[in-house]
Amino acid sequence: MVKTKVTKTSGISNVLADRYASPEMKAIWSPVGRIGLERDYWIAVMKGQRDLGLKIPAVAIQDYESVKEKIDLESIDKRERVLLHDVKARIEEFNGLAKREFIHLGLTSRDLTENVEQLQVLRALQLVRVKAVAALAKMAERAKEYRTLMITGRTHNVPAQPTTFGKRISMVGEELLVALDRLENLIERYPVRGLKGAVGTQLDQLTLFGGDAEKVEQLEKRVIKHLGFKAVFQNVGQVYPRSLDFDTVTALSQTGAAADSLSTTIRLMAGLGLMTEGFRKGQVGSSAMPHKVNCRNSERVHGFSTILTGYVTMASGLSGDQWNEGDVSCSVVRRVMLPDAFFAIDGLLETFLTVLEQLAVFPAAIQNENNKQLPFLASTTILMEAVKAGAGRETAHAAIKEHALTASNAMREGGGEKCDLIGLLAEDVRLKLPRHKLESILGESKRFVGSAPAQVDAFCKKVTEWLKRVPAARKVKPGKLL
Amino acid sequence: MVKTKVTKTSGISNVLADRYASPEMKAIWSPVGRIGLERDYWIAVMKGQRDLGLKIPAVAIQDYESVKEKIDLESIDKRERVLLHDVKARIEEFNGLAKREFIHLGLTSRDLTENVEQLQVLRALQLVRVKAVAALAKMAERAKEYRTLMITGRTHNVPAQPTTFGKRISMVGEELLVALDRLENLIERYPVRGLKGAVGTQLDQLTLFGGDAEKVEQLEKRVIKHLGFKAVFQNVGQVYPRSLDFDTVTALSQTGAAADSLSTTIRLMAGLGLMTEGFRKGQVGSSAMPHKVNCRNSERVHGFSTILTGYVTMASGLSGDQWNEGDVSCSVVRRVMLPDAFFAIDGLLETFLTVLEQLAVFPAAIQNENNKQLPFLASTTILMEAVKAGAGRETAHAAIKEHALTASNAMREGGGEKCDLIGLLAEDVRLKLPRHKLESILGESKRFVGSAPAQVDAFCKKVTEWLKRVPAARKVKPGKLL
Amino acid sequence: MVKTKVTKTSGISNVLADRYASPEMKAIWSPVGRIGLERDYWIAVMKGQRDLGLKIPAVAIQDYESVKEKIDLESIDKRERVLLHDVKARIEEFNGLAKREFIHLGLTSRDLTENVEQLQVLRALQLVRVKAVAALAKMAERAKEYRTLMITGRTHNVPAQPTTFGKRISMVGEELLVALDRLENLIERYPVRGLKGAVGTQLDQLTLFGGDAEKVEQLEKRVIKHLGFKAVFQNVGQVYPRSLDFDTVTALSQTGAAADSLSTTIRLMAGLGLMTEGFRKGQVGSSAMPHKVNCRNSERVHGFSTILTGYVTMASGLSGDQWNEGDVSCSVVRRVMLPDAFFAIDGLLETFLTVLEQLAVFPAAIQNENNKQLPFLASTTILMEAVKAGAGRETAHAAIKEHALTASNAMREGGGEKCDLIGLLAEDVRLKLPRHKLESILGESKRFVGSAPAQVDAFCKKVTEWLKRVPAARKVKPGKLL
Amino acid sequence: MVKTKVTKTSGISNVLADRYASPEMKAIWSPVGRIGLERDYWIAVMKGQRDLGLKIPAVAIQDYESVKEKIDLESIDKRERVLLHDVKARIEEFNGLAKREFIHLGLTSRDLTENVEQLQVLRALQLVRVKAVAALAKMAERAKEYRTLMITGRTHNVPAQPTTFGKRISMVGEELLVALDRLENLIERYPVRGLKGAVGTQLDQLTLFGGDAEKVEQLEKRVIKHLGFKAVFQNVGQVYPRSLDFDTVTALSQTGAAADSLSTTIRLMAGLGLMTEGFRKGQVGSSAMPHKVNCRNSERVHGFSTILTGYVTMASGLSGDQWNEGDVSCSVVRRVMLPDAFFAIDGLLETFLTVLEQLAVFPAAIQNENNKQLPFLASTTILMEAVKAGAGRETAHAAIKEHALTASNAMREGGGEKCDLIGLLAEDVRLKLPRHKLESILGESKRFVGSAPAQVDAFCKKVTEWLKRVPAARKVKPGKLL
Repeated sequence: MVKTKVTKTSGISNVLADRYASPEMKAIWSPVGRIGLERDYWIAVMKGQRDLGLKIPAVAIQDYESVKEKIDLESIDKRERVLLHDVKARIEEFNGLAKREFIHLGLTSRDLTENVEQLQVLRALQLVRVKAVAALAKMAERAKEYRTLMITGRTHNVPAQPTTFGKRISMVGEELLVALDRLENLIERYPVRGLKGAVGTQLDQLTLFGGDAEKVEQLEKRVIKHLGFKAVFQNVGQVYPRSLDFDTVTALSQTGAAADSLSTTIRLMAGLGLMTEGFRKGQVGSSAMPHKVNCRNSERVHGFSTILTGYVTMASGLSGDQWNEGDVSCSVVRRVMLPDAFFAIDGLLETFLTVLEQLAVFPAAIQNENNKQLPFLASTTILMEAVKAGAGRETAHAAIKEHALTASNAMREGGGEKCDLIGLLAEDVRLKLPRHKLESILGESKRFVGSAPAQVDAFCKKVTEWLKRVPAARKVKPGKLL
Repeated sequence: MVKTKVTKTSGISNVLADRYASPEMKAIWSPVGRIGLERDYWIAVMKGQRDLGLKIPAVAIQDYESVKEKIDLESIDKRERVLLHDVKARIEEFNGLAKREFIHLGLTSRDLTENVEQLQVLRALQLVRVKAVAALAKMAERAKEYRTLMITGRTHNVPAQPTTFGKRISMVGEELLVALDRLENLIERYPVRGLKGAVGTQLDQLTLFGGDAEKVEQLEKRVIKHLGFKAVFQNVGQVYPRSLDFDTVTALSQTGAAADSLSTTIRLMAGLGLMTEGFRKGQVGSSAMPHKVNCRNSERVHGFSTILTGYVTMASGLSGDQWNEGDVSCSVVRRVMLPDAFFAIDGLLETFLTVLEQLAVFPAAIQNENNKQLPFLASTTILMEAVKAGAGRETAHAAIKEHALTASNAMREGGGEKCDLIGLLAEDVRLKLPRHKLESILGESKRFVGSAPAQVDAFCKKVTEWLKRVPAARKVKPGKLL
Repeated sequence: MVKTKVTKTSGISNVLADRYASPEMKAIWSPVGRIGLERDYWIAVMKGQRDLGLKIPAVAIQDYESVKEKIDLESIDKRERVLLHDVKARIEEFNGLAKREFIHLGLTSRDLTENVEQLQVLRALQLVRVKAVAALAKMAERAKEYRTLMITGRTHNVPAQPTTFGKRISMVGEELLVALDRLENLIERYPVRGLKGAVGTQLDQLTLFGGDAEKVEQLEKRVIKHLGFKAVFQNVGQVYPRSLDFDTVTALSQTGAAADSLSTTIRLMAGLGLMTEGFRKGQVGSSAMPHKVNCRNSERVHGFSTILTGYVTMASGLSGDQWNEGDVSCSVVRRVMLPDAFFAIDGLLETFLTVLEQLAVFPAAIQNENNKQLPFLASTTILMEAVKAGAGRETAHAAIKEHALTASNAMREGGGEKCDLIGLLAEDVRLKLPRHKLESILGESKRFVGSAPAQVDAFCKKVTEWLKRVPAARKVKPGKLL
Repeated sequence: MVKTKVTKTSGISNVLADRYASPEMKAIWSPVGRIGLERDYWIAVMKGQRDLGLKIPAVAIQDYESVKEKIDLESIDKRERVLLHDVKARIEEFNGLAKREFIHLGLTSRDLTENVEQLQVLRALQLVRVKAVAALAKMAERAKEYRTLMITGRTHNVPAQPTTFGKRISMVGEELLVALDRLENLIERYPVRGLKGAVGTQLDQLTLFGGDAEKVEQLEKRVIKHLGFKAVFQNVGQVYPRSLDFDTVTALSQTGAAADSLSTTIRLMAGLGLMTEGFRKGQVGSSAMPHKVNCRNSERVHGFSTILTGYVTMASGLSGDQWNEGDVSCSVVRRVMLPDAFFAIDGLLETFLTVLEQLAVFPAAIQNENNKQLPFLASTTILMEAVKAGAGRETAHAAIKEHALTASNAMREGGGEKCDLIGLLAEDVRLKLPRHKLESILGESKRFVGSAPAQVDAFCKKVTEWLKRVPAARKVKPGKLL
């Protein structure tokens, strides 16, 4: 990797980059990383121009290549303070190092900056894709682990019907799959602005090539291909349309939604004492409050998701706000929004991977909750079995209803024996179901979780396919969190 | 203080539906339209259940079919006020009409409402797609019309380089193409929740079919296919993930961006007297202020676009906010956001089609502006020609610079002869370019607009392909605007 | 594919108005209500103009007054379809009824519509203020009721330190007090646009009064005073600045925040079985699932709050977006945003009042939770008491830590005797604290809740002051919810 | 000022701080600035605790005071990496420097961080207030300068009625006055959380003072007063309600709206060649394109305004999202949103001050536009004068209408003599108004601008009052922009 000195700064770092984003994501958006991309771009343009007939000596290109990794931010900064133009400063620095003047021929600033920024976006999108697949892989691993672990499913935050914890994870996993499909599609069709000149008519490149439109088109194609884009705009102005940034930032926000939902559910489950994050079996909490393990990382995932909604609004503000062939009112917004949105989703996925890695489930506590809730959730099944056992349907129905009310009120009034719905039902001769029979009915958890395990399998299968397509995801390990 | 009588009903209609949306879009979201979809859905489920072995008489299904179009909102409303449950009210109404009780077997409310709402979304997305293609067609028509009409391209809202008006339209048209690609992809992959039961485990359908998972799967497949969906979720809870609504609403917002940008540019051009909306050649304005034609429709397009940003924020608020297997804190939001976002984009596209239909360009005024600005924009070309004509390069450069400054200052100081840069240049013997020569150079507009006409052609070609795929777009005519 | 007939009218009502808003709020924003305000406004202007010397017969004004309550929306609508101008249609209708032509002299449309819309905003703000005070009153009532009811306070959703339920309500109540202070300040300073003419220079009124600026000022003052505004803009263009709408809508959103927070906490508490909404002591739930009482209203409060964030974004889009003296790109946005934001906050407050009215707390279940959690939360107190009882500090510390870990792990592993931290501590001779002693320590709940009861009192006192200032709040009763 | 070494960072600085914010704003939010505030806070608490009876030696407090400016970020950072707790690291650092252990007695982390962050917010709000008044002062200066400079007022971006450029500025200035009133009110009532302990019940301070609630209250009062707050919450949980952050951030966004509107209008006027930013009379543009002066700073103001809308959405996401006594899902959001929103408004105001300082108006070009448009705008006046001169009213009306149409069509068709409405009118004998008479009518600009100059005076008067209240505003000078 390129090395460089950090310039004297305000001392105020970018919090998202500094505390939460991964080195790979920071490399894409760092000043050094960007200058590296720019120089690659200039060299690609020069090579194309030379091949298409412009008089650029091969040795000059070599001179540029030999110095392209000498990135001295301080020197560039000094030039900018004299020239008051950031692109010119970087041109002169590169020319100065190479002792040549062949870069940027027939280009306007935007021919450089738009394409390089889109390259940053594209690479960052590809990185997000890898991490999203890594999160899916970890979710599938966990889903499989808890494929049949019955839990008390909740709607409106109160017990509704049983499900399994593996299914609960798969449900959110499938939400991420939808976002990933969208992300994939965006990467596939993401169009780059290309070499279009000041107002998009390619006037300066045409002039450079004596009006030969064919050559101008070939040059653009080469450069685009070199950069790795699959699609290119044909009609743009000074800039590419900012609704594409909206497309990008909303895709990031959507990618974070599944993690946000699961993290919220983890916080809810932790509140019920059913699980925790960051607490592996056998591990010991703080001595003062050994019971208190805060789901700080899950909370943080929600925080990142909230941050992303803000960048979505900024992108909304840019989208559809182009005047004529373009102006730069979007400039300061994009300087903030683009890297920060990527840092936020990167931090979110890093944190989420850690949550998935470290989460600790307490099956016994879950069993306790099931025992308390299942009799209520299974009342129709109990009715059916009572009838099979010889009870009259109406009699049994009335009995169950009566006991359910008693038990439910007892729970609200603080418990005691009457909370034990199974006990109440077992003691009622009308039902003809002794306790061991009732317990055996309620023990058939397979019956109560319905398709959940099969649904988990279906999810895992999809994830396996994604891992085949994106093998790099297997190697992702979340960094140590602050 | 003023007093007024409160009318009996609220008398407060949905503004977006009432004033701006098209009948087709309203039909999808109207109470009657929705009840029609629900009844069709119930019938599809019954047929599937019957075919798969449940005891539902064929004649019962016929009874439902024979009354399905009898939709009496008042009667349903009356039932709801008694039952305090909207779905139950609609079940009883339909049962009452058919004098049968076979609908909704093994379904929870969400098995009905989620799928029907997704059907509304899908059909509305398809309608938006048709209208977006219609807008493209109209843009291509206009782009072709003004393919070579040279205008003064602007960046930072000041003259920069020439382009053509056709290219200006194509530029925005290509922005819409990006949004359309996204919309198309969303429609292709849009997954429906399916028959999943209270917490997503299909427990009740499994019970109904005696635990036969195969049959439950077949039933779901039939129903999904009948509804016209291509994809179905496997892992969901009570509800489908709301990040899919975010996907939908952001796609709508993005679809409006191109129209927003072009409308803004039209407002700018109208301010310069170069064109107007709603004013066809030969038409006469109001007698009092014949000069004043307000771009109200273009302004309105921007208004719709702003409205959509609000629904994007609402969708952000729902996305990633699912607790456990789901709750209904999203309910009231979706009741507002989903139809209203579709009404807004529909109103936007209707208005935009009208703008495109009625826009009037003033070529003579455009020519005037070009005449004033072109000499500045073309100074490098003039220099080149002066050298060809025998002038010394440095001498010519200095002369041009001098006159450009003079003319530009003269324009700021209110004009007079010295604004006429061509005149100044023609009179300067150093340049050796008489006025007729200069005018002939500047007259070669083809030279100055670069690739613009070819870019227009490329755009029109893409639109032609879309029209082949979406022939319904050819028939779209915007309704009369209020 | 399903087909349905399109109904004649859109049949699509405004959901927020129709289902959730109160009759008072709807009256302000209804077409009839608005026309009433307009007519009153016109009459006020006429009276002022007459008093200041314009030749308007007193009898003409009487003619207008005698018909001002004859509001026939259909007739106005018919006129609009001919004139294609909504204000003109309403002018002609009123003139037609009165058989006079003295209204709207020297006014532009905006002189009417801006002021009337601001009057709607002001009255709606005043109504929100009354309801917010009503919510405070209900919160204070509840806070007093549960002033000393100790609950397990939670941070990160896990037990942290004790507090009281009354304090939990007061905490959120004080959040609402902050919002109310802001709302009050906004109402106090809310400036109306006034009679300013087409671009804000009062040209037409000046012409009408022969250039007499003094009279124009007096006319404006009279009209403003009549409408009940305390402040008026001096410098505006065609419209008042839309950042004032942003001021308004964000104040509404902020007003909903406290209710949103408390509703979320109610949903959390319901999930723990500690309380519920809509379930009074002695009341009976559904027979099938007597345990399941969904916090649908609390969820709905959160839904309204999410809706408001969307209108905030729309208002952001208008704020700072004025071109020159103004255009109408804000028009369609304000037609949607202003009434709907007020309907949303109104629905939110109505729902929240119902939640506060109907909430049911289960003290016994709360006591159970406290019993389980308090020993952990009170470990430092227990240590202190053990030392007092003669135990060595370090020995006692180690013993407590050991048992806390045992108990906490036992809870995670499903319970049993070892969950009972009190029991473990009581049996440990090192601590010298028998069970009855420990229970008596933990029983001193007053000690553990700190300043909570006093804080409740402080909150209630503030609410009492507000009720004195806004006595109308005492009469507010929430409507029956759908 | 305090000095410090910058820690090794990611090399990714905070763009808003680094490029746009002022040193004063950065000082408030810098790590060093914050640590300084924390240390002040701890010392204030210690002093209070000592005075109220805790055994803290005076000399210990002196020891802390003597080292409080030794802020070594690297050392703190090193401690944090060991302790994994940021507050503890800063406690140990300060204790280590002072060689004492008396800070943070009875405090939880939030007792420190909430109050210190609120202090940063309050000071930053005060700084924004000063700069907003400075912007008003500069606007008043400019408004006075152009008090009577007649311009063509525009609605819908097309000519409507005359106004003055001073009035145009005052109009936006008055928008800023509204925002300033709100800001002022927020500063007045801004409540600080205070010393409330882990869940807000003051349990730990009460324990420290042996249950003496009176002393705990006094301690809090002293500390609050020392910090400079005027209001304090009584009921809070772990954190103060985040709707107060929403209050803050929306106030900032509103403060930027006026500048955003004026900047947009400047961009429009620049497009018409009527004025420019950054171009003083006599100054010379670039030689290549002397005519092209881009309104980059005005565009940037719009950019900052768009950025602020994003932070508003983030604040919306936090507002009303408190669970129980609070969690930290807001933490990462506030780390980003609070400083960055203040940097954005600071950068906006700095940029806007520069725009106001440097703007250059071209009166001659404005006159040209007026000449072209005024005859249309003044047609009713001309009619009146023609009648006075003896023309028949109907004849004159028909003549004017005819010529207005001719001229307006001529302008659209590219000009020529027939654009000259004055000329057409002058030549028409029916009107009896020779050219010199017409010109003299149209020359009475005072007549056409109505109350504009008086309105400017009213604005300036208000600004003078503000300057008296905020004299620091007189000294504000914008920094040099990048």
